Amino acid sequence: MFEKYKITLASASPRRKELLSGLDIQFTVEPSKDESEAYSDDLPWNKVPEFLARHKSDSFHRKLEGNEVLITADTLVFLENENGVMEIIGKPKDAKEAFSILRRLSDHTHKVLTGVCIRTNSDSRSFTASSDVTFGPLSPEEINYYIEKYKPFDKAGAYGIQEWIGHVAITNIDGSFYNIMGLPVQRVYRTLREMLGE
Amino acid sequence: MFEKYKITLASASPRRKELLSGLDIQFTVEPSKDESEAYSDDLPWNKVPEFLARHKSDSFHRKLEGNEVLITADTLVFLENENGVMEIIGKPKDAKEAFSILRRLSDHTHKVLTGVCIRTNSDSRSFTASSDVTFGPLSPEEINYYIEKYKPFDKAGAYGIQEWIGHVAITNIDGSFYNIMGLPVQRVYRTLREMLGE
Repeated sequence: MFEKYKITLASASPRRKELLSGLDIQFTVEPSKDESEAYSDDLPWNKVPEFLARHKSDSFHRKLEGNEVLITADTLVFLENENGVMEIIGKPKDAKEAFSILRRLSDHTHKVLTGVCIRTNSDSRSFTASSDVTFGPLSPEEINYYIEKYKPFDKAGAYGIQEWIGHVAITNIDGSFYNIMGLPVQRVYRTLREMLGE
Repeated sequence: MFEKYKITLASASPRRKELLSGLDIQFTVEPSKDESEAYSDDLPWNKVPEFLARHKSDSFHRKLEGNEVLITADTLVFLENENGVMEIIGKPKDAKEAFSILRRLSDHTHKVLTGVCIRTNSDSRSFTASSDVTFGPLSPEEINYYIEKYKPFDKAGAYGIQEWIGHVAITNIDGSFYNIMGLPVQRVYRTLREMLGE
């Protein structure tokens, strides 16, 4: 499928590479060299991941080849704060911040949004996949065990669903399945088929 | 965790073994020798997986050791038929039946239920986890590609969520995350903690 095209995944995430492989397509991985994640303050929160995915695509460090298809994505975790405002839960800078984030996620529902942009030389499409993830209550001992053993400092929301904490904490999900792991592959597949006419 | 106990998973499923490993616990795998899956016709559909999990536990082929904890599980796929009755979608016996099942799942929502039983010499608990899984429309070519390449004849509902079809077909899920893969590990973990007092 899509054999006439050179598909490039511009992401350093091993998880995204694994998920895209699940589509049984050939592709190469070439992370973007521009990692700027700036966006305007007046952008609605639920548009941010898609904006960043498009930005990663538009600022890719080289021109696309004639038959090339570039896939970029950005995943963010959101939690409503005490003022009812949706707040981005970023990557924790240290164990203390990871603890504080996981205490907030404990016994609450948060949102995982992934924005995806798929671009060729003549066409560009983007979309957002959203999932609600509910954590049951976590004890301080459980949170500390996870942080010490798994060191989730490179992870938005301070957790990886495929790690221990994803197994013991998540009571419910609602939304896209593979989005929670980092790439909504069902919509990627459908969009590729529409764009490439196969 | 649970180091004083000998935990036994009575299942031949590599996927369940992988999911239980995600809890960071030591356990051994010893599939039950009694694979009878009989149940009474007057049992409500949503009680069947838990009944079968308890049956697998009660009919385990040997006595449990003093500190042993036996985990059994049964996963079934259900789809409402044209008369509004929930029907068990079993394992397909051949490619023709797999095609017929996947045509029915296409563009519909089905349910995945896993019953789990956890038993020691002095205690036994069981529960059911449920998830709604929605497939987008699949073309006959897509269904045939999947059946020919992945041969899903050992799979309830004729599909594995971790295979190609799980990546291209599933548009939405609602319920337990890891249940869809075969074992609701969050509730297994919580139940073990309750039962073993850790």
